[in-house]
Amino acid sequence: MTKTIIGSATKELAIGFDRPFVMIGERINPTGRKMFSAELRDRNYWRVKKEALAQVEAGAQMLDVNVGVPLADEPGIMAEVVPLIQSITDVPLCIDSSIIEALEAGLSVYKGRALVNSTTAEEEVMDRVLPLVKKYDAAVVAISNDETGISQDPDVRFEVAKRIVERAHDYGIKSEDILVDPLVMPIGAINSAGKDVFHLIGRLRNELKVNTTCGASNVAFGLPNRHAVNNAFLPMLAGAGMTSAIVNPLHDGLVQAVRAGDVLNGLDPACANWIKAYRPPPAEGEEGTRGRGGRRGRRGG
Amino acid sequence: MTKTIIGSATKELAIGFDRPFVMIGERINPTGRKMFSAELRDRNYWRVKKEALAQVEAGAQMLDVNVGVPLADEPGIMAEVVPLIQSITDVPLCIDSSIIEALEAGLSVYKGRALVNSTTAEEEVMDRVLPLVKKYDAAVVAISNDETGISQDPDVRFEVAKRIVERAHDYGIKSEDILVDPLVMPIGAINSAGKDVFHLIGRLRNELKVNTTCGASNVAFGLPNRHAVNNAFLPMLAGAGMTSAIVNPLHDGLVQAVRAGDVLNGLDPACANWIKAYRPPPAEGEEGTRGRGGRRGRRGG
Repeated sequence: MTKTIIGSATKELAIGFDRPFVMIGERINPTGRKMFSAELRDRNYWRVKKEALAQVEAGAQMLDVNVGVPLADEPGIMAEVVPLIQSITDVPLCIDSSIIEALEAGLSVYKGRALVNSTTAEEEVMDRVLPLVKKYDAAVVAISNDETGISQDPDVRFEVAKRIVERAHDYGIKSEDILVDPLVMPIGAINSAGKDVFHLIGRLRNELKVNTTCGASNVAFGLPNRHAVNNAFLPMLAGAGMTSAIVNPLHDGLVQAVRAGDVLNGLDPACANWIKAYRPPPAEGEEGTRGRGGRRGRRGG
Repeated sequence: MTKTIIGSATKELAIGFDRPFVMIGERINPTGRKMFSAELRDRNYWRVKKEALAQVEAGAQMLDVNVGVPLADEPGIMAEVVPLIQSITDVPLCIDSSIIEALEAGLSVYKGRALVNSTTAEEEVMDRVLPLVKKYDAAVVAISNDETGISQDPDVRFEVAKRIVERAHDYGIKSEDILVDPLVMPIGAINSAGKDVFHLIGRLRNELKVNTTCGASNVAFGLPNRHAVNNAFLPMLAGAGMTSAIVNPLHDGLVQAVRAGDVLNGLDPACANWIKAYRPPPAEGEEGTRGRGGRRGRRGG
């Protein structure tokens, strides 16, 4: 069974075919957020801390860290933000940048085994990112597009992903340390976008034996009531065999949907995680009952 | 592509591999409902009407009709209730009873092509139900258990379903007029219940080429926050290839989850149904803008 091990200084996380689905929180990202961008440029990280804590509290098992602000010193900011986040939470991080120096800045201060987000199949990108992944013994997200862009044919995207996996092997990176992003298209534009991804996940899992991830929310781009689409998409992705996704765990119902997917995929033994998360609080006076070995105890046995 | 045609006097509904998922409303059923049972015994049908209208309004494309009350004249009640429901709504009905006379009473007054709920693989049941299905040119739900009960092995349930399909053929009933219920077990008791059903749906679809249905809510029996489990289960069932389910469309989020499943399975062309159902109402004064060929029109083009 393919297993990608990511870790912080004190916590190890396995992403794998027989593991609960891993939610990678996407909220530490200033893209399209004016205030957040300005704060990062000023090296004011209160929002980074807030988003980190809120996402972990909501159920994210990992956090994506993207501090890409135009004209800012992204490597410098990354080098400050990564230790800051690691000082307030123990979940593993995903170092996310399109700037190689920012990736290296993050990796060089990271404690544990990081996930690098990302390489594509573009020659220039692979040649810069993959040696870094190897140097820091990290795992890497492999996005299935190349110099020609994103193919609408999922089987072409499979071949593109395969090329990254093979190149990674050349650099000494194992398949199990690669999370392929099959690329989710907006279903409002491409009606087969869902089916294409489900098909592609199956091929990636069965033929390349790799774990997978994606930016799930893209599927509902432009649609009304898009959270409801996302919340149905995540269990379907998990059912098709996807093992992680970059998501907003603060969106209403999303974490529940993912955890329910785990239950239904048989990845939550005895539904213990589900019951722990959603068991109603004991009624008043029930503590006393429990103390006497009362009804709750017997029901559980 | 397998297609089961059900109909009312004026409306035809196709259940099929390339069709939107069909929600069969389960609320016209007095099981476990004291007041409803008492009303039916008194031939007071106000609640039947209320449940019929509410479920159709919520999005049910069919309604299950079960009037099983101990010691009541179930055939007589069925013969009254079916025309009553058909007089206030045009969705097709599923005539649901364990009493053969009640099934026949419903079928004999039904206008259109009904679904009969159900036969099992028990010899005695098949020998009574299948001739009736043939006589009234109906479709039938085939539940995959027999005299020995429900097997926990999904491949045994497949063989049981196959036996019903073959027996139905003997009676001149085609595969396309059979909806197999693979039987959903409570996942709190059987951790593989979800995966078992996904596997079984695939076999039923690929090997027997039949449509499928189930009582979906059973999966979450005994769990806290069970609606969230159901709402993840339905898109997963659809993703695995199930084509209908008996559900409560009034449960928060359920209809959305099913419709989102259609979108993501590519069964809602151009997301038209989704957009129609969930497009926000136009802002004040926007009617005028649209009249001038304003922004909305351009964005849409």
